[in-house]
Amino acid sequence: MTIRVIHGPNLNLLGKRETHVYGSLTLAEIDTQIAERARELGVSVEISQFNSEGEIVEAIQQTADSADAIVINPGAYTHYSIAIRDAIAGVKIPTVEVHLSNIYGREEFRQESVIAPVCVGQISGFGAHSYLLGLEAAKRIVSGR
Amino acid sequence: MTIRVIHGPNLNLLGKRETHVYGSLTLAEIDTQIAERARELGVSVEISQFNSEGEIVEAIQQTADSADAIVINPGAYTHYSIAIRDAIAGVKIPTVEVHLSNIYGREEFRQESVIAPVCVGQISGFGAHSYLLGLEAAKRIVSGR
Amino acid sequence: MTIRVIHGPNLNLLGKRETHVYGSLTLAEIDTQIAERARELGVSVEISQFNSEGEIVEAIQQTADSADAIVINPGAYTHYSIAIRDAIAGVKIPTVEVHLSNIYGREEFRQESVIAPVCVGQISGFGAHSYLLGLEAAKRIVSGR
Amino acid sequence: MTIRVIHGPNLNLLGKRETHVYGSLTLAEIDTQIAERARELGVSVEISQFNSEGEIVEAIQQTADSADAIVINPGAYTHYSIAIRDAIAGVKIPTVEVHLSNIYGREEFRQESVIAPVCVGQISGFGAHSYLLGLEAAKRIVSGR
Amino acid sequence: MTIRVIHGPNLNLLGKRETHVYGSLTLAEIDTQIAERARELGVSVEISQFNSEGEIVEAIQQTADSADAIVINPGAYTHYSIAIRDAIAGVKIPTVEVHLSNIYGREEFRQESVIAPVCVGQISGFGAHSYLLGLEAAKRIVSGR
Amino acid sequence: MTIRVIHGPNLNLLGKRETHVYGSLTLAEIDTQIAERARELGVSVEISQFNSEGEIVEAIQQTADSADAIVINPGAYTHYSIAIRDAIAGVKIPTVEVHLSNIYGREEFRQESVIAPVCVGQISGFGAHSYLLGLEAAKRIVSGR
Amino acid sequence: MTIRVIHGPNLNLLGKRETHVYGSLTLAEIDTQIAERARELGVSVEISQFNSEGEIVEAIQQTADSADAIVINPGAYTHYSIAIRDAIAGVKIPTVEVHLSNIYGREEFRQESVIAPVCVGQISGFGAHSYLLGLEAAKRIVSGR
Amino acid sequence: MTIRVIHGPNLNLLGKRETHVYGSLTLAEIDTQIAERARELGVSVEISQFNSEGEIVEAIQQTADSADAIVINPGAYTHYSIAIRDAIAGVKIPTVEVHLSNIYGREEFRQESVIAPVCVGQISGFGAHSYLLGLEAAKRIVSGR
Amino acid sequence: MTIRVIHGPNLNLLGKRETHVYGSLTLAEIDTQIAERARELGVSVEISQFNSEGEIVEAIQQTADSADAIVINPGAYTHYSIAIRDAIAGVKIPTVEVHLSNIYGREEFRQESVIAPVCVGQISGFGAHSYLLGLEAAKRIVSGR
Amino acid sequence: MTIRVIHGPNLNLLGKRETHVYGSLTLAEIDTQIAERARELGVSVEISQFNSEGEIVEAIQQTADSADAIVINPGAYTHYSIAIRDAIAGVKIPTVEVHLSNIYGREEFRQESVIAPVCVGQISGFGAHSYLLGLEAAKRIVSGR
Amino acid sequence: MTIRVIHGPNLNLLGKRETHVYGSLTLAEIDTQIAERARELGVSVEISQFNSEGEIVEAIQQTADSADAIVINPGAYTHYSIAIRDAIAGVKIPTVEVHLSNIYGREEFRQESVIAPVCVGQISGFGAHSYLLGLEAAKRIVSGR
Amino acid sequence: MTIRVIHGPNLNLLGKRETHVYGSLTLAEIDTQIAERARELGVSVEISQFNSEGEIVEAIQQTADSADAIVINPGAYTHYSIAIRDAIAGVKIPTVEVHLSNIYGREEFRQESVIAPVCVGQISGFGAHSYLLGLEAAKRIVSGR
Repeated sequence: MTIRVIHGPNLNLLGKRETHVYGSLTLAEIDTQIAERARELGVSVEISQFNSEGEIVEAIQQTADSADAIVINPGAYTHYSIAIRDAIAGVKIPTVEVHLSNIYGREEFRQESVIAPVCVGQISGFGAHSYLLGLEAAKRIVSGR
Repeated sequence: MTIRVIHGPNLNLLGKRETHVYGSLTLAEIDTQIAERARELGVSVEISQFNSEGEIVEAIQQTADSADAIVINPGAYTHYSIAIRDAIAGVKIPTVEVHLSNIYGREEFRQESVIAPVCVGQISGFGAHSYLLGLEAAKRIVSGR
Repeated sequence: MTIRVIHGPNLNLLGKRETHVYGSLTLAEIDTQIAERARELGVSVEISQFNSEGEIVEAIQQTADSADAIVINPGAYTHYSIAIRDAIAGVKIPTVEVHLSNIYGREEFRQESVIAPVCVGQISGFGAHSYLLGLEAAKRIVSGR
Repeated sequence: MTIRVIHGPNLNLLGKRETHVYGSLTLAEIDTQIAERARELGVSVEISQFNSEGEIVEAIQQTADSADAIVINPGAYTHYSIAIRDAIAGVKIPTVEVHLSNIYGREEFRQESVIAPVCVGQISGFGAHSYLLGLEAAKRIVSGR
Repeated sequence: MTIRVIHGPNLNLLGKRETHVYGSLTLAEIDTQIAERARELGVSVEISQFNSEGEIVEAIQQTADSADAIVINPGAYTHYSIAIRDAIAGVKIPTVEVHLSNIYGREEFRQESVIAPVCVGQISGFGAHSYLLGLEAAKRIVSGR
Repeated sequence: MTIRVIHGPNLNLLGKRETHVYGSLTLAEIDTQIAERARELGVSVEISQFNSEGEIVEAIQQTADSADAIVINPGAYTHYSIAIRDAIAGVKIPTVEVHLSNIYGREEFRQESVIAPVCVGQISGFGAHSYLLGLEAAKRIVSGR
Repeated sequence: MTIRVIHGPNLNLLGKRETHVYGSLTLAEIDTQIAERARELGVSVEISQFNSEGEIVEAIQQTADSADAIVINPGAYTHYSIAIRDAIAGVKIPTVEVHLSNIYGREEFRQESVIAPVCVGQISGFGAHSYLLGLEAAKRIVSGR
Repeated sequence: MTIRVIHGPNLNLLGKRETHVYGSLTLAEIDTQIAERARELGVSVEISQFNSEGEIVEAIQQTADSADAIVINPGAYTHYSIAIRDAIAGVKIPTVEVHLSNIYGREEFRQESVIAPVCVGQISGFGAHSYLLGLEAAKRIVSGR
Repeated sequence: MTIRVIHGPNLNLLGKRETHVYGSLTLAEIDTQIAERARELGVSVEISQFNSEGEIVEAIQQTADSADAIVINPGAYTHYSIAIRDAIAGVKIPTVEVHLSNIYGREEFRQESVIAPVCVGQISGFGAHSYLLGLEAAKRIVSGR
Repeated sequence: MTIRVIHGPNLNLLGKRETHVYGSLTLAEIDTQIAERARELGVSVEISQFNSEGEIVEAIQQTADSADAIVINPGAYTHYSIAIRDAIAGVKIPTVEVHLSNIYGREEFRQESVIAPVCVGQISGFGAHSYLLGLEAAKRIVSGR
Repeated sequence: MTIRVIHGPNLNLLGKRETHVYGSLTLAEIDTQIAERARELGVSVEISQFNSEGEIVEAIQQTADSADAIVINPGAYTHYSIAIRDAIAGVKIPTVEVHLSNIYGREEFRQESVIAPVCVGQISGFGAHSYLLGLEAAKRIVSGR
Repeated sequence: MTIRVIHGPNLNLLGKRETHVYGSLTLAEIDTQIAERARELGVSVEISQFNSEGEIVEAIQQTADSADAIVINPGAYTHYSIAIRDAIAGVKIPTVEVHLSNIYGREEFRQESVIAPVCVGQISGFGAHSYLLGLEAAKRIVSGR
């Protein structure tokens, strides 16, 4: 079982940027945790970060042949990228939306996700753990238990 | 470590009601899964279901002395019970909000949670797994890792 | 055939309260009319009044085993109780919503019923007659004519 | 006692059109049921169907001299015809608004009735029975019991 | 002259909870101040706290026979309990709404009171003094000066 | 100079209907006043009343060859008839909108006129005088002084 | 009979300013027309222009002892001065609101008048004639014909 | 194959009215183009223009027996006639909505079509060509290619 | 301790104006009651009434050197004067907002106070008593008990 | 005459994705139909598909030198890409917006096109035919007939 | 070249008031900086501060004869004074709107300027530098480079 | 001191496109003016134009190591690119937002900037001068005077 992990825009700034909101881990450190957790769960992961909406659309399209599930943190695109939403709906691979921060405790415009309605579910607010819980959720969905 | 699990209104109908939305597990079966998962995680759980808003408020207030974290599925009260929100904010015990269904893929009025802003995070859409992931998230928050 | 009649909050004040809006009949007098009309229609009725949302949720849940239809005047809860709505949707027993006053001729917040979408139909504005017409409607739905 | 029954636009398509929403009875069959029920109730009825807003306005105006109450299904005009509303308010004859389907369970724009505030009450969702209940309600209002 | 003082949900947490917003007095200490002030004003008070909406509705209904005025802090229910509003409107006893904090300086959803339109007046923002001023206001209303 | 005066729906009920809002003059009496005022101003008038939107559209279209200005009270159509608006904009004859009552002091839906933006001006609130002032306004516009 | 005519802010710029919207007459020329028309109607007028909201409030208050009616063009204050609205409601002297331009054909924020609901009526869109028609309307109201 | 072409209100003014918006062709000239294009496509057309909403409703109802598709320019009724919408939904004949002007580049209220959701598709902005493209679209739908 | 009492626009009309809303006391009579109550409380008061927004802004600015607290009834300016709000926020003197009538039971536009968020608290609905309670509240705030 | 055809994001998934909404044709098959229709119409076409908003902006900019008209299906970008809108407005080449599905019969957020106001016109709902009709419309616009 | 600098309400409190928002410079110090910068730019300035909306309207009107451009910080009036907007539009002198703080990073009601649409441009967020940049902008506009 | 100047989408069309809105200067000419002004101010500038949102995000991220301030005209992305907003907030380099046209005098959707809240300030409406003033503002912020 292969799970595609996609980090959205500006997540490459993690650990440098607004650490009171996003924590002090860098993206590389989070990726290490994801890889470890994947090993524990017995799944492979392929992880990338993109700043461009078009690249995320294409990365999702490519999962059709290469992955069983997607774990995505769409970052700022969460709130307006109908193109990413349509890509997820189009590939029909089960997708889990994750967020580091609790988006429902932030600015009003961050409280709507245009992506969520086409995902299986959403996990938000647990820092890097959101990804780890997301991996586990994805595995359970694919394995049907 | 003790985790208080609170099921909101009408969840006692689970498995009988709208199974295309909520799945065919009964609440008793979900509670068994929660208990098992708690055992695996090495935490105790105390589980209850309430139909009354006031009883949920009081159950939350009582955790102040008896639990380290709360996992709550506020059911219909998710969308309007500021009293439950205030109780969570008042007891200051880390709280994880969970939902069986993906509330962001349902009727518009179900897409707003007045509870979410005072919780640590939210997990929705994974059926009974939402509770299991919630337990794990709660444990990580309390244990600080 | 058994029909469950549920009066919502503050209806126990009827006849004492705002008689220019709700008429001068007391709840007991209305219950007598309901019982008489039930007799004419050849159905049994079980009637209760509750001020608490949670009690109404539970009364509805209990109809699953004890009644063929519900006639409910949800009173103030009409406008915000998603918990009551979910209970009605959950028990799958045909439900008729009734109101003494014409809620569409009153304050704007009284013109939306969150209950109506899960009921078979709604009757409002005919004073105590709304209940009597509701009984008849419920009987026709259950008997399929 | 004479009751004027007015069917609004497109109701002449009944039984041919969207039968999953409106049932399979034709308008003629409903009119027969109305006539029978009127006989049982001891009232005369005059029944017509109009597609034009202006004709409905005039039919209402003419009841001033010829009827004791109106039972009206304003169809699509329910949602925007202030002209029909003003006609009802103007003739001061007690009016009962009826709908075949439960308008509160349909598209959002069908959930507002501009007619309802000037009617005595509203009955919606009971198919052809809505008319029969409407007749009875009208009779009770006129006879004052 | 008897004045009924009703504390709404979560006010039993006072002094333990969010003291930067609500101050460090416990509810017992506030009740002592209320009792003292009542003595100075020459009125009796009966004070209770409830977490359940239904219990508040019933407490208000019972004042019809036992009190001359109500001083109520509806807490979270301020913002959505039409049932409490209807109870106050129903018993017709002059009611003063009080709030510890200035609700107009807080979150937007706390700036609307569905209770206020049926009260004589509202006092908010003076901490425990809001109750004391409320007592005095209630006395002036009842005594007509 | 010929001025076309058009009365909208339900104005034929004037004097019989809601006299506390519209005054006790009948439409015939108002027409007499209009005719007298026209004589004083030295203009001819052609006056009609229509209940149907389509007839008003056609009456406006016909003014292209027969009148120099229009004075119209669109009644209920004021608030939604874009068809009447388009007819006025299409014929390019200067049009004065008049209302018996002050529409800005009535229900919110009566406070918007979809007709007003294509008229030269609007006169509302002066009872039958609104027509007389409208005639004078129309004459001034046509005569350019 | 004395009629107080009040010009609101920036009307002293008339004839110099945006003549495509307001016409090329200066305020002095309009005042001359008003005075002439008053003479024809046999009424006295007192005319002033104010840029300050407070001065308009006071001018209105002073009419209580000195005038029988007010004709006011509140200019920009039309859209937000509740203070002027309250002054008009307070003095209880019949008031006619006038506007040079058709405010319903302009920017959306100019289409709401907070003043209109407390006036007898409104006349807008006829340039300087709006004042002359306003004088006549005011006279008819005061003289009761 | 027969295609019913329906022109809505005020389209009979074409060529005389607001030619900068709608072009200088008269309706007769457009009808000639439609007839020619129909000949090229090998379909018959029946063309009418109506100013009354009720007549359009009836014209649509009559297509049930006489046409294979409808091409309709509902004019002003586009924006509010739910009666026309219901007629189209009721007759179940494939319908193409056309507009001369680009309604999405005009006033905000012209940017919503209540008709569009029940049509197969919409063509707007190409002047008289909109009808010709509409004919072709209708033919392709009926012929299934 | 000196308390500055500021009456907003049109309050000089009190007792003459809309007495069913504001009571029959004149402003002079209220000022007498305020002065008496101040004497009882052992504080000095300085009282003024202003119709101009700018004058109120300046009166507030001057309190910086002359008063310990402000009791203000901003009248109509309550609902839109951000300038008065900024003055209160700027001088940093504790301010109590008072209203004679219960603004939450009146027109919708009167239910929002742009002033309230920068005041310590608000007292509304007790007639002239609102001022007396406001004085007491102000004294308690300044004296810190 | 050269016409530039631009397919927006995710259209490369056509035929694989949500075929009940978009039909079973692949993009390659649609491109073949477009090429055939272009040959019939005697125009050249240049066709591309892009997932990235920036690439679409640049493709549009490049038409300034290489094409006479644009036929664009902006896909998800229809609903928010002001950048694409500005590019179309900037190059001043006549543009036809096309959609496979009837966007007015889908989710509410798909019913607004930010692109439409700067296009000549829009064709939606006819599946692959929308492109063919769009080509023809574009040719007519460029050739002026 | 003369530039009129106008400071709006409460700016005379600068340096004393909310220094974390507006900085610690007094208005006198800012005026000194403005005067210096004016000297550098070779323009004269006339500077005033007003708390009254009416006085600002009049100051703007007087620039018609005395200045070549206006630099204005309308303070709180930015958000509601249509009277000031109309004065600027009326005098037709190029106007630059400046703000000390970044109004787009503050409360929602401060994010709308009713003044901006009639100014040449707006500069906000640079503290006292906003005025200096505004002077330079004004000079460039007047000198046409 | 180095200042990064970023031009957003479609600005490369400047001078060719809608010159009545944006002026007739080409982007190259504006860049020359920027370079000259930078020389006068003694700062270095690095200037680029991007049509892709992702490229702008990355350009901003790269300033972290290469520039002291950013001057950005985000073009169409101003109104929806939360990704660009997050990049600016993330790099923590002081940023000045500039616009050629006065965005507050244009279409409603252009009047909101999602970028502004994370910038130091905004300058709009002065054509190419907006950039020159922006450079100066950026220099003052960095140099702290």
